[in-house]
Amino acid sequence: MLNVGIINITGYAGSEIARLVYSHPELNLVSATGRSKAGQYLDKVFPHLEKINIKIEEELSDNVDFVFSALPHAASAEKLSQYVDSGIPSIDISADFRLKDLETYEDWYDIKHPRPELIPQATYGLPELHRNEIKNSKLVANPGCFPTGGILSMAPAVQNDLVEELIIVDSKTGISGAGRTAKEAFGFSELNDNCAAYGTKGHRHQPEMAQELNFLGKNKVKVLFTPHLVSMTRGILGTNYGSLKKDLDEKEVLELYKEFYKNEPFIKIVSAPPATKHTWGSNFVYLYPYIRKDTNTLVVISALDNLVKGSAGAAIQNMNLMQGFEETMGLGALPVYP
Amino acid sequence: MLNVGIINITGYAGSEIARLVYSHPELNLVSATGRSKAGQYLDKVFPHLEKINIKIEEELSDNVDFVFSALPHAASAEKLSQYVDSGIPSIDISADFRLKDLETYEDWYDIKHPRPELIPQATYGLPELHRNEIKNSKLVANPGCFPTGGILSMAPAVQNDLVEELIIVDSKTGISGAGRTAKEAFGFSELNDNCAAYGTKGHRHQPEMAQELNFLGKNKVKVLFTPHLVSMTRGILGTNYGSLKKDLDEKEVLELYKEFYKNEPFIKIVSAPPATKHTWGSNFVYLYPYIRKDTNTLVVISALDNLVKGSAGAAIQNMNLMQGFEETMGLGALPVYP
Amino acid sequence: MLNVGIINITGYAGSEIARLVYSHPELNLVSATGRSKAGQYLDKVFPHLEKINIKIEEELSDNVDFVFSALPHAASAEKLSQYVDSGIPSIDISADFRLKDLETYEDWYDIKHPRPELIPQATYGLPELHRNEIKNSKLVANPGCFPTGGILSMAPAVQNDLVEELIIVDSKTGISGAGRTAKEAFGFSELNDNCAAYGTKGHRHQPEMAQELNFLGKNKVKVLFTPHLVSMTRGILGTNYGSLKKDLDEKEVLELYKEFYKNEPFIKIVSAPPATKHTWGSNFVYLYPYIRKDTNTLVVISALDNLVKGSAGAAIQNMNLMQGFEETMGLGALPVYP
Amino acid sequence: MLNVGIINITGYAGSEIARLVYSHPELNLVSATGRSKAGQYLDKVFPHLEKINIKIEEELSDNVDFVFSALPHAASAEKLSQYVDSGIPSIDISADFRLKDLETYEDWYDIKHPRPELIPQATYGLPELHRNEIKNSKLVANPGCFPTGGILSMAPAVQNDLVEELIIVDSKTGISGAGRTAKEAFGFSELNDNCAAYGTKGHRHQPEMAQELNFLGKNKVKVLFTPHLVSMTRGILGTNYGSLKKDLDEKEVLELYKEFYKNEPFIKIVSAPPATKHTWGSNFVYLYPYIRKDTNTLVVISALDNLVKGSAGAAIQNMNLMQGFEETMGLGALPVYP
Repeated sequence: MLNVGIINITGYAGSEIARLVYSHPELNLVSATGRSKAGQYLDKVFPHLEKINIKIEEELSDNVDFVFSALPHAASAEKLSQYVDSGIPSIDISADFRLKDLETYEDWYDIKHPRPELIPQATYGLPELHRNEIKNSKLVANPGCFPTGGILSMAPAVQNDLVEELIIVDSKTGISGAGRTAKEAFGFSELNDNCAAYGTKGHRHQPEMAQELNFLGKNKVKVLFTPHLVSMTRGILGTNYGSLKKDLDEKEVLELYKEFYKNEPFIKIVSAPPATKHTWGSNFVYLYPYIRKDTNTLVVISALDNLVKGSAGAAIQNMNLMQGFEETMGLGALPVYP
Repeated sequence: MLNVGIINITGYAGSEIARLVYSHPELNLVSATGRSKAGQYLDKVFPHLEKINIKIEEELSDNVDFVFSALPHAASAEKLSQYVDSGIPSIDISADFRLKDLETYEDWYDIKHPRPELIPQATYGLPELHRNEIKNSKLVANPGCFPTGGILSMAPAVQNDLVEELIIVDSKTGISGAGRTAKEAFGFSELNDNCAAYGTKGHRHQPEMAQELNFLGKNKVKVLFTPHLVSMTRGILGTNYGSLKKDLDEKEVLELYKEFYKNEPFIKIVSAPPATKHTWGSNFVYLYPYIRKDTNTLVVISALDNLVKGSAGAAIQNMNLMQGFEETMGLGALPVYP
Repeated sequence: MLNVGIINITGYAGSEIARLVYSHPELNLVSATGRSKAGQYLDKVFPHLEKINIKIEEELSDNVDFVFSALPHAASAEKLSQYVDSGIPSIDISADFRLKDLETYEDWYDIKHPRPELIPQATYGLPELHRNEIKNSKLVANPGCFPTGGILSMAPAVQNDLVEELIIVDSKTGISGAGRTAKEAFGFSELNDNCAAYGTKGHRHQPEMAQELNFLGKNKVKVLFTPHLVSMTRGILGTNYGSLKKDLDEKEVLELYKEFYKNEPFIKIVSAPPATKHTWGSNFVYLYPYIRKDTNTLVVISALDNLVKGSAGAAIQNMNLMQGFEETMGLGALPVYP
Repeated sequence: MLNVGIINITGYAGSEIARLVYSHPELNLVSATGRSKAGQYLDKVFPHLEKINIKIEEELSDNVDFVFSALPHAASAEKLSQYVDSGIPSIDISADFRLKDLETYEDWYDIKHPRPELIPQATYGLPELHRNEIKNSKLVANPGCFPTGGILSMAPAVQNDLVEELIIVDSKTGISGAGRTAKEAFGFSELNDNCAAYGTKGHRHQPEMAQELNFLGKNKVKVLFTPHLVSMTRGILGTNYGSLKKDLDEKEVLELYKEFYKNEPFIKIVSAPPATKHTWGSNFVYLYPYIRKDTNTLVVISALDNLVKGSAGAAIQNMNLMQGFEETMGLGALPVYP
């Protein structure tokens, strides 16, 4: 059994990692921190985790052999670096090690990176694109929830040079993506029965998508990303658009996507619009690529659970790869529907 | 036109008063305060109120002829008292002037009343029970949202001595009743798709219901009140139980309720279970009284919009009475459904 | 007072027209039909309309001077034509008279048009584009809910030749747009906490948007429209994309939109992302145009209530114009929020 | 591995059994029926069950060693009886074998029982009360969702003779309890943001609660049951009231409940109001018993997932007992929150 620790278990990413760790046959959650809630038992904060009988601490205990950090950016790099320095394998849920270009990071996050020298050794944790690097990495940067859908949607198209430079990613996210911190704008009465865009001046997940898609293709792409808050707890639906460079029919594009992801345990290529709720609580991603002949456009719709494949589930999948476990271990439960 | 002011327009009660004032042909909203948002234009805080072109202030301006206070308890009495002292007619949305017995107030609210000598001149603002006193009052205590449903449900039964001493009020409220202040427990992800009781040690609306029902009957009643948060924005459904003292059939009880409320413009006695959504945005209350013969119990189900008849709409209705306007003025819009 | 009739009052468009007719000072609802519910009193079907004391009939009564038809397409043209033939002014909520090109209609709706010879005398009921024609028309085709947002969003850009040929309209609609008819796919448990695209093979509102935008510009545009169901009852948020033909900054585009809509009573140009809930129950449309310099794209976000400006409210606005009433009459109530 | 079959997999109870069967290490789903959907692959109906690669059939195949029936009442007894006659162990999710008294069944369900002679050999499947009988039974009647909460809430009180004759069970259920069949009243727009009571003339789960509670106590109790639909997908919150016969304080009642359920793997006795969402997808029941001294009443609040402990999870738990598996097998996943 591997002893794992979770830094900042008191947010939704941290608590979801704890839920999945509990179901994993090779993991043992031995320690967890949570800023304002240190000293409390976990089940006071999250009654659904009552079976995990631990007290939230100020610092992780010494017997931890694997660390997940669910702190916000900057704070995460700072805290995690001590484990990285000690050679303890780690996964960072924050954005600190996702962007390879320091300047891009510092521009978009408007902050000095606390440990820029660690960036080169970090691996972007999307197994569908970087499986082998993840297996050999000690520091994995878990992808953002929106980029997971956006990159997986367009990767086959970009690698096969199917689309023009401009890619539009129009995403609809459940509110849990906004985190657990109390804010007036995230109150139930504000968001229930409501829908709005945000981040219209530029959202930090945009450079992350651009980076990964540009690793793949010969020709540069630009991403225009518009996130929207919709009135649900979990799930991200992404509608991804790219103008086709050449004629292609729907069957061809479906086959091409199926081929690209043929060995992927969590990717399902479907031929009808997927719904986020069919992924609830699971690590699956649905991708529905289709062609609109009248405007010669490729549209790819993606559906996933932002807290699982968009966060905690991806972290477990990455940890499995890093530790040499079966990649799907602990991630076998079906979605809970309805 | 009457110049009105709203103290603390930045909560849901205050903003709902503003919405209704705008539609009222005799009212002009000339001034409004809002603690942390003073200096901002109203439409920055509430875009739906953009037609009301005012700036939120620290203090109400001098040209106000009628005051609504939507401050929390204690703060409300303190601030309102200056208007009461100046003879300006006022409605207090808070609980400060609802309870006639000072000790009961200070016990349940765990606070010293800032202006106890004003309590005797305040009228409990439920027109269905106190219409004439309201007409002659300068200070009206707007009822709590739960008591409005509970009292209206059981008043005919208590006055006619139909039920035993114990009255159970089991209420299900939309989340807007919790106010607009940011709290972790009221975040969308916490409350969406969720249901829980609260205030199980005793909720402050209980003595208010007991007070009003005991004014009516010859025999004392006791109220057991259990509020629940349900996953909706507006609406309170109350399920009110009383053991019958004597045999009564459903027709008789329906007739008795219809008779009791025969001149009431906002009370509808119905013979099937009402739904909160049928009151959305309106001042109506549905009451469905029925008998369960097998246990000899009277059950009365009430449905209302907690922000209208449970708060701002009642305030407008009371103001109409105090000012000698038509009682229903400004309250004629139908519920918005679905 | 004008005597109005509503054909098919038992759907959400029909009942919403009834709600607005009730608040209109010059209208009197004298007759209404509803297929399976003929013979029932209106309040049995819609308790919130209890104040409108009418019985649902098989056919409209003879004293009707103005007709709203909320029947589905084809059925609507067939039924309405008798009133059109008699010279009674009418508004068709269905799609039957929206498309000027018969072939386009018959292709997209896969049906023979029952009265094609009436198409030329029908006016597309978007007052912001066709105010004068509407004033002089006896038959108005009320726009579709999605086209209302899409056309209003892009009309200033197309007329000023700002954007390239391809316009992407990515819309998120509340479920009431799907109507009231019982279907497994529209059950609460299926759609709550869920999000999905539909109509991905081509939605019938696409040619409607293309038609109206192409009336405006010198250069032809093509519309790619993707509708999505989100977990809310009312509201449509549209995210509309067009590649800019020339450099333009945000201020210029805001000014240009403000100028275009400067006399419009229901259009609000805003400089921050609007939310659908701020239009709940009202006839307002929010438009937020902005530029993404990094991809040289114009994005316009629109928010409206699909049952009001997207349907019944637009019908009242059109009727006001046709009858010579004040355009905003009966549409003055503020949105109900939260 | 045990080969199991599910009759009527196409409703929410049937599909939830399938989800749990998939996670159970000793079960193999080999056959499933579903009335109107026979011939379709399961993942066309329920995409979240795509991993279970079976075709829906008209009749169960012959290799089934254990049967779950999720048909409606009457149809269920009729279909199941052939398996019972063949000695195949079976669990009936419907109400057909819950009531021991034939007349009570035929009165409340207004139907002739198709196989009344089987009633005596059926066991009421609440392991907390009937564990040993279930172990030795070949036909188990899975409890209703509401009775599960109501009986578990009041069993310790009734057995210890703490409360007077009248027990009030006020329950709030998520909409999935209404099933998957398309009905106008269960459309999203009708139920979203809404709350209403139903079954006010008497709901069929009432005699079930009365039966089980009266097996326990020396003194007869009567149950007054009021179910309510609230705007969520899963979960039942029950608020259960009984007047105390003697003085008792909160600590005593908590201890008494903890003692009663001390060996129960799925019952959690808590000392603060539980929330339904903390049980989402899991077999746990939270019980919060407390005393209201001012009215001398015992209140017990219960929270559970209506589709798990209220239906499919209880069925798996019962099957485990009948087959001699570990009682908690396949039910170990934590609730999914938020």
